[in-house]
Amino acid sequence: MNSIKDLIGVDFPLFAFSHCRDVVAAVSRAGGFGVLGGSSFTPESLETELRWIDEHVDGKPYGIDILIPEHQTLGGELNMDRLMGQIPPKHVDFTVDLLQRHGINAGPGDVVTRQLPATLPEVGEALMDVAFRHPIRLIVNALGIAPPSMLSRARAHGVPVGALVGAKEHAIRQVQAGVDIIIAQGGEAGGHCGEVSTLVLVPEVIRAIAPIRPVPVLAAGGIMTGAQMAGCMAMGAAGAWTGSVWLATTEAETSEVFREKMVAATSRDTVRSRTRTGKPSRQLRSGWHAAWDSTGSPGALPMPLMAMISIPTFELIDKAAERPEAPARDLVTYFVGQGVGLVENVRSATAVVQEFKEDFADAVGRMMAFVEDDR
Amino acid sequence: MNSIKDLIGVDFPLFAFSHCRDVVAAVSRAGGFGVLGGSSFTPESLETELRWIDEHVDGKPYGIDILIPEHQTLGGELNMDRLMGQIPPKHVDFTVDLLQRHGINAGPGDVVTRQLPATLPEVGEALMDVAFRHPIRLIVNALGIAPPSMLSRARAHGVPVGALVGAKEHAIRQVQAGVDIIIAQGGEAGGHCGEVSTLVLVPEVIRAIAPIRPVPVLAAGGIMTGAQMAGCMAMGAAGAWTGSVWLATTEAETSEVFREKMVAATSRDTVRSRTRTGKPSRQLRSGWHAAWDSTGSPGALPMPLMAMISIPTFELIDKAAERPEAPARDLVTYFVGQGVGLVENVRSATAVVQEFKEDFADAVGRMMAFVEDDR
Repeated sequence: MNSIKDLIGVDFPLFAFSHCRDVVAAVSRAGGFGVLGGSSFTPESLETELRWIDEHVDGKPYGIDILIPEHQTLGGELNMDRLMGQIPPKHVDFTVDLLQRHGINAGPGDVVTRQLPATLPEVGEALMDVAFRHPIRLIVNALGIAPPSMLSRARAHGVPVGALVGAKEHAIRQVQAGVDIIIAQGGEAGGHCGEVSTLVLVPEVIRAIAPIRPVPVLAAGGIMTGAQMAGCMAMGAAGAWTGSVWLATTEAETSEVFREKMVAATSRDTVRSRTRTGKPSRQLRSGWHAAWDSTGSPGALPMPLMAMISIPTFELIDKAAERPEAPARDLVTYFVGQGVGLVENVRSATAVVQEFKEDFADAVGRMMAFVEDDR
Repeated sequence: MNSIKDLIGVDFPLFAFSHCRDVVAAVSRAGGFGVLGGSSFTPESLETELRWIDEHVDGKPYGIDILIPEHQTLGGELNMDRLMGQIPPKHVDFTVDLLQRHGINAGPGDVVTRQLPATLPEVGEALMDVAFRHPIRLIVNALGIAPPSMLSRARAHGVPVGALVGAKEHAIRQVQAGVDIIIAQGGEAGGHCGEVSTLVLVPEVIRAIAPIRPVPVLAAGGIMTGAQMAGCMAMGAAGAWTGSVWLATTEAETSEVFREKMVAATSRDTVRSRTRTGKPSRQLRSGWHAAWDSTGSPGALPMPLMAMISIPTFELIDKAAERPEAPARDLVTYFVGQGVGLVENVRSATAVVQEFKEDFADAVGRMMAFVEDDR
């Protein structure tokens, strides 16, 4: 099996998924591996971000994550008017009313975006056009089987392909489809996730794919410390894939209100809900979920329609929440895993990598001491 | 902090929870620590079981688990007729009809037990009377704060008290109440469980109780291999608490049909449901859950009423399921964690302990090799 170091050139196999270029560059510079979440950008803005990373990463390796769902239930050709026509008025009215009750005056036109959803295959292809013009060392698809075009284009550029999976069956299909790195993501993870825990999923996936083809498996879901990373690698993982821990860094794109909520939260303050993207994804529990899950709620729309509401709506919420004591603060939420319970303060991304390395070394030392004592 | 070895005399800190005396004795003899689930017994039958263990454990340490919930919503004095009067006829009729549809002829009197629920405090006290007459080295309460009588009686006998917790707040309260060992059980566990995963809960609990009093924390939930055990200990756990893995041993009390289902299951084949005991507990998904969760179901009753139905009903189901091709097989289920996806065959408990030790050593070796490579 190719080691992770051989495959992508990382020393300390700590993978940091972030939508923030500063985090990506800082982690890679510190010896980890930053992965830019590309699906929140347009092709033009992605070009800007990647050029900035190239200029700030000191030649260290980094990667990109693009979210192309295998199953998109809409069908038919790409037509923004048609997509908007599929959003029922009651969902728009519900959103406008919810904002109103939290001190935000907005009209129906303010809570639905006309921007193309990044999760449409056509957008994914355009983002890949940009990505492969840069020296990326990994490309990851976060939803379903990596599309054939991603695999063939990555092959042509000599870039390994990674895929996130939440179930053993999906890992088997991904390996059969040809991916080079599996990211086994437990149900405690922030964002889109399944229901099997990291502790169970990682060994189950490693065991399931071993007879097919030797592929490194990264552990994901709930990992916020170097000790957890060491624990997962003791189980056979080739490294750790992390996301939530970077949201509480000084560089992160998150709002100050959200970072304050992260520090205050325990591991029980998250919820797995369809009410942000249309697919089940774990988020910090807020008034948003209380409202959408209440009786009288019209319920979540499928992907990508739900995001066409939630993206502009959360821009309004986050802006309104900047005012101290603003009622909109109750609605503030973002994708985050149960590991949020381990966040105690906001630090720089560089400091987080350093602490991972120290915790990791301590954990290995703990294991060696236990074995020594036993003799 | 007292080490687990000093506290209870175990060499390899693998704790095996089982309702089966054979498993308890075999695990302790092999160097682990067997814990008998005491709440499925009457005081008389518990006396028989513990005497048998004393005769078969070769002087090795073992423990007992008694389930005394902190909150029992019934109130009032203990009166079997009154308890039975609280079971609505529609729940009895639903159960009789469900059995009928699976080829089991039973009347309303067959699906409700008149036996005292083991989860009543009075029964718990009587079980403790028996337990403390034997050389137990640990007593554990599995639901809520250990009652003061358990703590004071254990103190008098010099027996450490353990407590299962599914959330950091509960761990803090347990340590403040005086327990000696915390078992941090993730939501992937079989039986009664919370929603936070083992990988997150273990470090969160360790960190939360450290400022109060140094108490060893065992990791529980999803642990089926020595590599997972090593992973949890790398995170700072003092050992592993396991349950489901022993259900697939040759000694176990489980039926052959259930063990076959375990081998066939993946980690996604469990469900967290109130329909067996009245509190959320994880079980193998079967036709039982499909029926109780369907429209037209009367819904689960609170503890202990639900168990007064499910205990006699599953005796009928398991008996009927012994016949090949019996429709009752569809209903067969039992408490089991997501780790069921890691069960590949049925072995002896002694062989399982041995494999844990080998996997554990391999995992430690893996960590040492990674650190060596890195130099």
